[in-house]
Amino acid sequence: MENNLPHNTLIRLSKYRRLLEKYKYMDEPYIFSHDLARMLDIKAVNIRHDLMLLGLTGDRQKGYSINLLLEKITSIIDRPGRGVILFGMGRLGKSLISYLKNSESKLQIVAAIDIAPAKIGTSWEGVDCRSIADLGSIMDSQASPIAMLAIPSEEVSILLPFIVDAGIKGILNYTPEHLAVPEDVFVKNMDMVSALEEISYFME
Amino acid sequence: MENNLPHNTLIRLSKYRRLLEKYKYMDEPYIFSHDLARMLDIKAVNIRHDLMLLGLTGDRQKGYSINLLLEKITSIIDRPGRGVILFGMGRLGKSLISYLKNSESKLQIVAAIDIAPAKIGTSWEGVDCRSIADLGSIMDSQASPIAMLAIPSEEVSILLPFIVDAGIKGILNYTPEHLAVPEDVFVKNMDMVSALEEISYFME
Repeated sequence: MENNLPHNTLIRLSKYRRLLEKYKYMDEPYIFSHDLARMLDIKAVNIRHDLMLLGLTGDRQKGYSINLLLEKITSIIDRPGRGVILFGMGRLGKSLISYLKNSESKLQIVAAIDIAPAKIGTSWEGVDCRSIADLGSIMDSQASPIAMLAIPSEEVSILLPFIVDAGIKGILNYTPEHLAVPEDVFVKNMDMVSALEEISYFME
Repeated sequence: MENNLPHNTLIRLSKYRRLLEKYKYMDEPYIFSHDLARMLDIKAVNIRHDLMLLGLTGDRQKGYSINLLLEKITSIIDRPGRGVILFGMGRLGKSLISYLKNSESKLQIVAAIDIAPAKIGTSWEGVDCRSIADLGSIMDSQASPIAMLAIPSEEVSILLPFIVDAGIKGILNYTPEHLAVPEDVFVKNMDMVSALEEISYFME
C-alpha cells in the first residue's frame, strides 16, 4: 500500500473520518470545507488541500459528498486484516482492550501476551492472554500486526527484543521508556508523564 | 513562570530528565551529549542546543554534570503544587491513577470526578471520587490544575463546559472527541484510535 501522504494530512484525515461518521446518516449528504474547519478548529484551506491530495474537489454549490469522503479516506487509512497484539494484560491493558472494543475502529486487539504465568490462559472481553513463546505462531496468523505496549518499564528490555525479532514494524508505546528499535520500526509514544509535563509547561 | 522554550526542546528535556534520573546515583557524575544522543536516538547537536538554551555548557573533558542537568531541568519543568483532576472513574481512569502513582512524577491526581451517582464517594488508591458539583471547591484548593479526561465520548459535551468555566487551562484528552475550547486552553490529545491509524499508515 502507498503511504506517501504528509504526516499532518494523515492525522487530519483520521479526524475528518471520525467527525463525518456522525453525519453519514443525516439528510444532507454534503458538507462544506468551512463547516468541517469550524467543527475541528482546522483551517479550511488545509482541509481543501488535504482532500485535493486524495483527488477530491468540492462542488461549489453543495460542498463535498460525505459518503465519497468517507469511502476515500477509509480506503487510504484502513488496512483490512491488520490486528493489534497487546503486551501486558494488567489493568491498563484490559482498559485498552475494552476501550478499543467500544470504539468503531477496524483495528482490534487480536491477542494479548504477558510474562506473568498467572495471567497466561486468562482472557478479557474475548482476547486470550498467551505466553511470549506463542508470539511466533500469533505472527503466522497475522498480516503485519501492530504491537501495543502496556507493560511495566522494567519489562521493556525483556520483551522488546522478541517484538523486534518477530518482525513487528509498528509499536504504540504506553510505557515511559525510550524504545531503541531499528529504523524501519515506527514507534508512537503515548507516555502520560511526558504529556502532563508538556501541558504543565505550556498552559497559561 | 516563563514558558518560552521551543516545543520540541521541552519535550526533549522531559526525556533527558527521565533518563538521567537513572544515572544520578552512579559513580560517574558527568555525561557527554553524544552518550545522551546515543541512548535517546536524538542528535547530539540538538541536545547541546537545548542545554545551551538552559544556560548549560558541557566541560570538554568531562561532559555535563548530571546533578546540575537534573536540577536545572526540574526547575524548568516542575510546577510545585500543581495537581491533576481526573474526570471519569472507570477502568481507564483507575488505571491512569495507578500508573501515575507508580511513576516518579511530581504531578499527581488530587481528585476524581464522575457523573455516575454510584461512583461518587468511592475512592481508588487514595483518590476520592466526587460530584461535578464539587469542582468549584476542588478548584479553590488547587493552584491551576490540569484536567485529565477519561470519560466516554458522550459525556464530553456535558462535562467540558464545566471544566472550561471552572478556569482549567490544560487538558489531557484520552477521549477521541475534538475538544472545542477557548484559545487559552492547552489541549493534548491521546486518542488511541488515531494513534493506531497513524502507525498503521506509516509502518512498512
